[in-house]
Amino acid sequence: MLFLALFILNFMNDITYQSIGIINSPFKTKEDMPIQPTGDKGINGEIKIYSEFSEGLVDLEGFSHIILIYHLHLSTGSSLKVIPFMDNNSHGIFSTRSPKRPNPIGLSVVKLNKIEKNILFIENIDILDGTPLLDIKPFIPDVDCPNVDKLGWLEGKSDKMKNKKSDKRFNE
Amino acid sequence: MLFLALFILNFMNDITYQSIGIINSPFKTKEDMPIQPTGDKGINGEIKIYSEFSEGLVDLEGFSHIILIYHLHLSTGSSLKVIPFMDNNSHGIFSTRSPKRPNPIGLSVVKLNKIEKNILFIENIDILDGTPLLDIKPFIPDVDCPNVDKLGWLEGKSDKMKNKKSDKRFNE
Repeated sequence: MLFLALFILNFMNDITYQSIGIINSPFKTKEDMPIQPTGDKGINGEIKIYSEFSEGLVDLEGFSHIILIYHLHLSTGSSLKVIPFMDNNSHGIFSTRSPKRPNPIGLSVVKLNKIEKNILFIENIDILDGTPLLDIKPFIPDVDCPNVDKLGWLEGKSDKMKNKKSDKRFNE
Repeated sequence: MLFLALFILNFMNDITYQSIGIINSPFKTKEDMPIQPTGDKGINGEIKIYSEFSEGLVDLEGFSHIILIYHLHLSTGSSLKVIPFMDNNSHGIFSTRSPKRPNPIGLSVVKLNKIEKNILFIENIDILDGTPLLDIKPFIPDVDCPNVDKLGWLEGKSDKMKNKKSDKRFNE
């Protein structure tokens, strides 16, 4: 009875979403892919939005950039301390963009080239093929780009993220 | 038997997360609050990270701005077409920042003032009191701020988002 109560209590804390579509990209494995959207200028991908959600795409094509929120479906397990791609030192997971997060949620700002029916054609993609999409938001510089004055351990390194590729470190 | 199979199949598509902490703010209802983080300069909030995740906060304090991803826990139902706060016309939900999304996921870039143990002190908050937090990422202009050239239906309006307050339209 106690186990049942604990099971139900645990279930009650769950926050449950469903995929609204699938992201297709040239990146079939977690190795050797760009670590951020700026990493592969010109590398294109497509997002197929499930038909039941396609009405929600109306007027999105007017925006040059969109925010994708997606489920890091191949991320296995989480670590609270990681050595990220850009450094040789360990950092708390929330101060990194590593995929091994308690909730494996990915975020990318990408260029939207066009929409044909329920297919979005996007550019500068850093997302694995087959990734389930959770949400799309229009990117709005006035609210999404604050004046940043501190970049923590990434100070002097973040511009190099544009050309950095992943390696095997987050495969396990 | 068919119902059981359908139930299990449905369950298999679910993507399940758990809250890593709770956001506290002065905004107790969905009305009369800023619609975006820039909307209330100086309005402060606190995030209490559950102790089992506090190790993940190491080195986060070095960043002046962070991305919060959270569950819009008071959003009731979704609509694929909405009339957003900034307009009188209907738009597809994915071309807006309205809370009535298929997956009620919220995103804000906020200023991080300091961290004390597992409490984050943040500024310019647009989030309801009691909101469950899903993820924190460091905000990195080099990857998070592209050069935007098209703002769709928000063209010429987005700077006004900074001062706009919510009304009752998303209460149902």
